[in-house]
Amino acid sequence: MGLNSNRVEDFFTHSANTTVTSLKVSTEIPMPPPEEAVEVHNVCLPPKKTTFQKLKHRLSDIFFPDDPLHGFKNQTWCKKLVLGLQSLFPICQWGLHYNLKLFRSDIISGLTIASLAIPQGISYAKLANLPPIVGLYSSFVPPLIYSVLGSSRHLAVGPVSIASLVMGTMLSGSVSSTDDPILYLQLAFTATFFAGVFQASLGLLRLGFLIDFLSNATLVGFMAGAAVIVALQQLKGLLGIVHFTGKMQFVPVMTSVFDHKDEWSWQTIVMGFGFLLFLLTTRQISIKKPKLFWVSAAAPLTSVILSTILVFCIKSKAHGISYIGHLPKGLNPPSLNMLYFNGQYLALTIKTGLITGILSLTEGIAVGRTFASLQNYQVDGNKEMMAIGLMNMAGSCTSCYVTTGSFSRSAVNYNAGAQTAVSNIVLAAAVLVTLLFLMPLFYYTPNVILAAIIITAVIGLIDYRAAYKLWKVDKLDFLACICSFFGVLFISVPLGLAIAVGVSIFKILLHVTRPNTVVLGNIPRTQIYQSLNRYKEASRVPSFLILAIESPIYFANSTYLHERMLRWVREEEERINESHESTLKCIIIDMTAVSAIDTSGIDMLCELRKILEKRSLQLVLVNPVGSVMEKMHKSKILESFGMSSMYLTVAEAVGDIAASWKPQP
Amino acid sequence: MGLNSNRVEDFFTHSANTTVTSLKVSTEIPMPPPEEAVEVHNVCLPPKKTTFQKLKHRLSDIFFPDDPLHGFKNQTWCKKLVLGLQSLFPICQWGLHYNLKLFRSDIISGLTIASLAIPQGISYAKLANLPPIVGLYSSFVPPLIYSVLGSSRHLAVGPVSIASLVMGTMLSGSVSSTDDPILYLQLAFTATFFAGVFQASLGLLRLGFLIDFLSNATLVGFMAGAAVIVALQQLKGLLGIVHFTGKMQFVPVMTSVFDHKDEWSWQTIVMGFGFLLFLLTTRQISIKKPKLFWVSAAAPLTSVILSTILVFCIKSKAHGISYIGHLPKGLNPPSLNMLYFNGQYLALTIKTGLITGILSLTEGIAVGRTFASLQNYQVDGNKEMMAIGLMNMAGSCTSCYVTTGSFSRSAVNYNAGAQTAVSNIVLAAAVLVTLLFLMPLFYYTPNVILAAIIITAVIGLIDYRAAYKLWKVDKLDFLACICSFFGVLFISVPLGLAIAVGVSIFKILLHVTRPNTVVLGNIPRTQIYQSLNRYKEASRVPSFLILAIESPIYFANSTYLHERMLRWVREEEERINESHESTLKCIIIDMTAVSAIDTSGIDMLCELRKILEKRSLQLVLVNPVGSVMEKMHKSKILESFGMSSMYLTVAEAVGDIAASWKPQP
Repeated sequence: MGLNSNRVEDFFTHSANTTVTSLKVSTEIPMPPPEEAVEVHNVCLPPKKTTFQKLKHRLSDIFFPDDPLHGFKNQTWCKKLVLGLQSLFPICQWGLHYNLKLFRSDIISGLTIASLAIPQGISYAKLANLPPIVGLYSSFVPPLIYSVLGSSRHLAVGPVSIASLVMGTMLSGSVSSTDDPILYLQLAFTATFFAGVFQASLGLLRLGFLIDFLSNATLVGFMAGAAVIVALQQLKGLLGIVHFTGKMQFVPVMTSVFDHKDEWSWQTIVMGFGFLLFLLTTRQISIKKPKLFWVSAAAPLTSVILSTILVFCIKSKAHGISYIGHLPKGLNPPSLNMLYFNGQYLALTIKTGLITGILSLTEGIAVGRTFASLQNYQVDGNKEMMAIGLMNMAGSCTSCYVTTGSFSRSAVNYNAGAQTAVSNIVLAAAVLVTLLFLMPLFYYTPNVILAAIIITAVIGLIDYRAAYKLWKVDKLDFLACICSFFGVLFISVPLGLAIAVGVSIFKILLHVTRPNTVVLGNIPRTQIYQSLNRYKEASRVPSFLILAIESPIYFANSTYLHERMLRWVREEEERINESHESTLKCIIIDMTAVSAIDTSGIDMLCELRKILEKRSLQLVLVNPVGSVMEKMHKSKILESFGMSSMYLTVAEAVGDIAASWKPQP
Repeated sequence: MGLNSNRVEDFFTHSANTTVTSLKVSTEIPMPPPEEAVEVHNVCLPPKKTTFQKLKHRLSDIFFPDDPLHGFKNQTWCKKLVLGLQSLFPICQWGLHYNLKLFRSDIISGLTIASLAIPQGISYAKLANLPPIVGLYSSFVPPLIYSVLGSSRHLAVGPVSIASLVMGTMLSGSVSSTDDPILYLQLAFTATFFAGVFQASLGLLRLGFLIDFLSNATLVGFMAGAAVIVALQQLKGLLGIVHFTGKMQFVPVMTSVFDHKDEWSWQTIVMGFGFLLFLLTTRQISIKKPKLFWVSAAAPLTSVILSTILVFCIKSKAHGISYIGHLPKGLNPPSLNMLYFNGQYLALTIKTGLITGILSLTEGIAVGRTFASLQNYQVDGNKEMMAIGLMNMAGSCTSCYVTTGSFSRSAVNYNAGAQTAVSNIVLAAAVLVTLLFLMPLFYYTPNVILAAIIITAVIGLIDYRAAYKLWKVDKLDFLACICSFFGVLFISVPLGLAIAVGVSIFKILLHVTRPNTVVLGNIPRTQIYQSLNRYKEASRVPSFLILAIESPIYFANSTYLHERMLRWVREEEERINESHESTLKCIIIDMTAVSAIDTSGIDMLCELRKILEKRSLQLVLVNPVGSVMEKMHKSKILESFGMSSMYLTVAEAVGDIAASWKPQP
């Protein structure tokens, strides 16, 4: 209907157009109003650019907003090479200034996170339905790779709860980890490989902004939902249930818990809740007094040691308590031959890799940015994606599953005084010693303690204060949060996330579809025009209606804006009729906040102008931004509007037009 | 990661916060700069509203932007009843002032569109794979209903090409119209019923803005693609092919044309192209001289009459030419019993109804609005949806398929001088006479002439000039246009539309994800601050960096804006170092165009302020709009920012801050 209608209009509005020009009083020689002389500034077009230049500028703005090469400008070739190496391998940068003092800090923090990483590694691997040893493997190779490639100084790398949970859920849906453990392991490594490929290519293609679409509100809800699911899953270990559902939703898990009451073991329950209480208490102590961070950092390893000794002592009497059992000694075996690129499970591994990849990326980058901003250094998002991606690709070939920067361990790392990524190397060394010599010690470690460690770790993810803040500040953000929480809890992780992203995008579209329009008034004795509604001292200017549109004008809102503005005009005329003020003569639209316009918007402005002209009302635009001016110019409506109905400020427009109404001397 | 990270920040930035306060020089007693006295106005919060009030305001803005009840205010009950009746049945409004002069105009225009509507009705029914008579039925009942309910004076109602095509494609995919004509007819009526229900409920629920998401660019591409498909489909009739594909995509249609070369009939081809030439010539004449609109309006009926006579005369010699054959006489039979609400085809009819409903609604409303704006009256979108919806619901019970306001016939109606919806009644009367008495005359009407009429009608839908304008003005709009064109041509109508809507929404999101930031400078001897890039006379203010953000701040762009603004600061510092100007002390962000903010955006501003403070740079916000102020207030960051770092205009901010730097006397 587009141009067709325009064509018809062209046929029949010639007469209207000619009357228009006669309506307008010449504005070339503005008469100064009594108060002050009106100086009028022209609205400029932006400097001309070719399509290619604009495309180049636009693309560089989309993909290189941080201007990554700015350090390379005006440098010699040799220097550029060094800078390039340093940018690819940040270790070349900080490695030059590394000294013994830094090393002392890094050793302490590295050992602290190792004491946390070893029990967490074993626990998270169980969460992903993988053999516990894979969790330790994943705490050895990835930290080494990250310490060479990563740009964050405080990120502690290893398996994390959310990614483990999601991988466990998605793979268990198709393959049972108990019936076919080898295939399950193959799928896990393949999914890890795809996650790495996906992460690295996001970084390489500089598409990192895609993860920004997971808004803060979505993540708060998602993590709380995931935490509840993970915690409920741990009821299996905590109650000693043997036959448990493989599903992850709230309903089947709770059904499973109460259907197997006969399997509950009181020994397990006593032990589990005892250690859970201990872990939660130490967590509270560390939250209240951040200086005592080591209390909660050391608690998991302490619990593991204590419970293992306990089980070892009472092993003949406590049959209800299950323990880890034999773990193989030795370093990560290669797993390149276990990657599985054909057959029916390819789609599953790609999908799992994509979702775990994006989730672990989000967590790793958010954590990296948080600690970077605390110490006032920059973490390059795209470079981090490359580092995390390469780390996972390498990990998938050395028996590791998805890893990223963990929030809890990074916080401990930061508090323990980590200075560089060497703390990750120390962590890897500690895991190496464990893998080579200490594995038999875990034989009697009870599974219930791993459940307690996981519950303590994920409880921190339920951030009710953030949810309350969302409710206070932005109801639609809260809705996105709630959607992702219940979506994850009752439907599934990918669908819950998709719903939440949908709600977030809907919010943007709703804002665009129904933008705000405001009537402006003059603040006495100034050139300032502000909302009449907000500023009580602002007053209407007789014969003028000054409207501000607070949104880009798009196809999605042009009809609405058209109707809304005609309604403003109607309401203003009704008000004037009632109060017997001087008649309305001119509508001024303040376009300062109209950051973009499309062809539908331009057509709307044209049509609005025609309708108003038929009612002998003048339409004037104030301060259109560069891109809007350019589009109006290109679509030739600038000529029909005339540069004389464009002003730079509302004050100039009011002054000049009011002056032009005065009878010429 | 949300609040977790905030918490950690809270732990470790107490020291930073305390240094900040000492950094700021007291602004209570501003020193006037030498030039002029600085008067500072406070930024106000918007008036307080409860959540309920805000929800009410928001909902009324979403669903009742036009304030439909404004005419009812301050009226007596009796008057309100009359107004209500008039609003439900617009005929009660214009019917009161109807007179003979108006009637004369309406008769002429009604007969003119009837001469066009009868051949088009038969042709479009064939396009939807329906019996030709259904097209005539659909030109009888719906115009009558619309004349009572509709608010447009120029809309000529009946079957249209796009909706016919889409219905034909979608239903033929599942049911053959030749093998099972009764079932096909049932599905068509049921789909029409759902289309009507959908349209009426859109109007009733005031969700009309949903059709705004079909942007002008999308429609230009979609209609061109549909026109090409329809025209190619007519090759069947134009070449006399008997066995033709039921598919609608470009490739199978062209394959079908050349696979059946042996069926091409030279008599049909000669006749078809002859009349096509005649119709196209008359169309060109009417386009060149709008006063000769009747030439193209009368051409289809003339062609039908001439070709029928021709076939009647040579019927014994020309076996290759197929003709319509027997058409039943009589009025629309009831078809309520043919609606089909259960079984396997329910989903298909709902889907078909939804898509044809939305397409015919878009066409009908766009056409109605076009002619309303030419004659300066208003067409209420929601009321039109109700009218079109009820018309289709009634149509589905009286053997009609989907109808709406047709562009070509409405244009003829307008040109022929229609004054009110009575022209639709005249049209219905003419169709009534045809149905009752003239049906046998169409026995020998050749199918090839119907193909020629359709081609002539749809050629007007290919609007290459609009596409060229899109290319000139907005490359992304052009991309949406091209996507919908090729999507419809090569994939399918629904998918093509979905892709185009996706591209349009992606464009909005892209604008939000990568918003424009501009450095402002002062225009000498004024209080105006404008883009340095656009206004050559604007100059930088020493020690200040003034940035304007041209977009709402959302989760989708907060990371980008954070990086981009730090880059502006870095670049400004580098520039200052090179040119040895006075050091940068203050960053001013002009928030006039930031029409909304969410929690991620607020966190970003907080973090930016912290980072800048660590570098001893002051951050000041100028003129946040009402909703942004409110959210900043609610999230308590107004207190930490301090009202003293909020200014109403850039000029006041610069004046006041520069004055505070002067040493106190």
